[in-house]
Amino acid sequence: MAGIITLTTDFGLDDGYVAAMKGVILGLNPDVRLVDISHQVPPGDIGRAAFILGSVYRFFPGSTVHLAVVDPGVGTSRRAIILQTPDGSFIGPDNGVLTFVIENYCTPAGENMALLSQEAMAVEIAKRRFFHEPVSSTFHGRDIFAPVAALLAIGAPLADFGPRVDSLLVLPCPRPQKEPDGSVRGHVQYIDHFGNLVTDIRTAQLPSGRVSIELLGRVISGLGHNYADTGELVAVIGSSGYLEVALAGGSVETFLGARLGDSVIVRLSA
Amino acid sequence: MAGIITLTTDFGLDDGYVAAMKGVILGLNPDVRLVDISHQVPPGDIGRAAFILGSVYRFFPGSTVHLAVVDPGVGTSRRAIILQTPDGSFIGPDNGVLTFVIENYCTPAGENMALLSQEAMAVEIAKRRFFHEPVSSTFHGRDIFAPVAALLAIGAPLADFGPRVDSLLVLPCPRPQKEPDGSVRGHVQYIDHFGNLVTDIRTAQLPSGRVSIELLGRVISGLGHNYADTGELVAVIGSSGYLEVALAGGSVETFLGARLGDSVIVRLSA
Amino acid sequence: MAGIITLTTDFGLDDGYVAAMKGVILGLNPDVRLVDISHQVPPGDIGRAAFILGSVYRFFPGSTVHLAVVDPGVGTSRRAIILQTPDGSFIGPDNGVLTFVIENYCTPAGENMALLSQEAMAVEIAKRRFFHEPVSSTFHGRDIFAPVAALLAIGAPLADFGPRVDSLLVLPCPRPQKEPDGSVRGHVQYIDHFGNLVTDIRTAQLPSGRVSIELLGRVISGLGHNYADTGELVAVIGSSGYLEVALAGGSVETFLGARLGDSVIVRLSA
Repeated sequence: MAGIITLTTDFGLDDGYVAAMKGVILGLNPDVRLVDISHQVPPGDIGRAAFILGSVYRFFPGSTVHLAVVDPGVGTSRRAIILQTPDGSFIGPDNGVLTFVIENYCTPAGENMALLSQEAMAVEIAKRRFFHEPVSSTFHGRDIFAPVAALLAIGAPLADFGPRVDSLLVLPCPRPQKEPDGSVRGHVQYIDHFGNLVTDIRTAQLPSGRVSIELLGRVISGLGHNYADTGELVAVIGSSGYLEVALAGGSVETFLGARLGDSVIVRLSA
Repeated sequence: MAGIITLTTDFGLDDGYVAAMKGVILGLNPDVRLVDISHQVPPGDIGRAAFILGSVYRFFPGSTVHLAVVDPGVGTSRRAIILQTPDGSFIGPDNGVLTFVIENYCTPAGENMALLSQEAMAVEIAKRRFFHEPVSSTFHGRDIFAPVAALLAIGAPLADFGPRVDSLLVLPCPRPQKEPDGSVRGHVQYIDHFGNLVTDIRTAQLPSGRVSIELLGRVISGLGHNYADTGELVAVIGSSGYLEVALAGGSVETFLGARLGDSVIVRLSA
Repeated sequence: MAGIITLTTDFGLDDGYVAAMKGVILGLNPDVRLVDISHQVPPGDIGRAAFILGSVYRFFPGSTVHLAVVDPGVGTSRRAIILQTPDGSFIGPDNGVLTFVIENYCTPAGENMALLSQEAMAVEIAKRRFFHEPVSSTFHGRDIFAPVAALLAIGAPLADFGPRVDSLLVLPCPRPQKEPDGSVRGHVQYIDHFGNLVTDIRTAQLPSGRVSIELLGRVISGLGHNYADTGELVAVIGSSGYLEVALAGGSVETFLGARLGDSVIVRLSA
């Protein structure tokens, strides 16, 4: 049993960058299972990578190592980290790409900082011993993160890689707000390949009772059970546990001209 | 030996949806081999997914489990099925996505229905025991199809998943017609990444003798042996066993403005 | 241990072509590891495939079998070859797609030919015994290259596949030139997904001392250490060992309208 390593990057699928990482991993850990999460993150879009990884990691065994390399600051002084949690281990730059994981094991500590709770542990990747030499200053994914992931998946102890760290960088996430009239105001936080709008409103945050959902001047009455309920706009509890707005057989993004950050208001129906 | 599972979806490669399915599968069947067929099926294009899967499954071992999730009716009353044949097992919604597999093990029974022959067996996926709970109403690929595929690849018997069904839904496929003068009239049924036009005319359906091929006002004399035979249009027996029209070094689709459904006529040369 | 097979093609990810190859491989070698390098090579772009494979193969174990199928002449008289080197085995058409591998084990012999050195060995794939029958004249990737790769990864000896060949076809590669004033004139030989420009100038070919880099009327002073050094143009030694020009947080390709073949001049600073 040599574990599973997942990969999330902004490298795209045109070049050989992802394969170079896999070659390094397989050279050290020939039996590991490699699973691509996405390599189509737009260049440098840390927030989108963070959301994708955050919505997927729970579906993998807790022994999985998740590698997240969206790293516009590669080669600068930003730290490289390993975060170990009961739900998986995570490797990447300390630039917020693990935000949606960290928020489950942390208490906030200032605007962009989070203090790890006791369930989780993190180290800074500092010991060069495991790096793939010579280390390119522009491709830590291949020369630092890949070998560390390979060895971690084999079972190398966290302490082998560097000193413990207690606070990690997180992105400021939009959060839904409860209004005085009981309604909830959230935002579009992700738009998927189908053009579905994923909001930041979780099931537990919805007002209890029959609701209506408003965005971009439209009002949707009630929650649907699936995308096919109507030929029109539909609001559903999506597969990530957030309220989603979809258009049966089409893209809401295109239909409404929706964008990240757009307001979504959920009201109790009269 | 934990089998092979292939995946054909319209999920695209941008989001984490495909990876979520793989995580669920690997959690249940850690040693299975996962092979992507295509995730670039246009959203909801059941016919295209059906053709792609139909042209590929024969190249896998008969023990392979093929998962096909193009499922615009997810969460509605459409059935979820498993089809077991000597050439592979297939899991997906009963919406026609298995048409090109089913037609080899069936007799037609009405416009959109096919009765299974004795070589094949199908069940409706009905027992919740194996589902990944809670089941999202919008992502049966992850919560129903993925765990069923994982367990089927391990060797769980078909009867464990639900009751037997005898008829399955198939898409109305265009079929080539023999004309009174001996010519064959077919259609463009698939256009590939290179812009090659795959017709619905099989080798066995070609008139025997030297032929000419007509489409969109052009006439091609004789069958070529490969794409490089000419700098012009060429008709070949393609790798799926259908008559194809190609343009050496270019895209016929673009060159002729060809579209799905366009007529292709094969005549015996004088 | 059944080895690793990598795949580099221009098949794209829309159709089932790549999966058909994998099915054939897994039918013969069920335990092999399959790694995609890229399938997004533009149709017929042998040079781009050659560069991608050349920049990646060294990161895989020497026992790896690399399959390269960019093959516009499929079905014509172009040879199919296997090249065995200490750094990996390579299978593909003899059309230049292995140029960046061959150049490390060869001496030039005429404009488009290279004579193999003693470190490497090549055979022409000629014995039909191992082919997947019937062999399609348009898809040797599936019917010839895939089964040969599967068996080679299992350990079949090179001589089983056909007669030895001593010279292979290579693409004419642009090479940087040393000018009388000590400067080096190279070219943009690859543009990656981020819009970074990879030149053909290797580290060892740079003038020693502080340099300036000129392209498209711009002058960059000195080599940077990473992409984030400036908000402007930056020249770095890239991860493939070539001089690269990048734009921190953006695409140089778009910013400068750069193209393959554009001149890049490196001068010693005064």
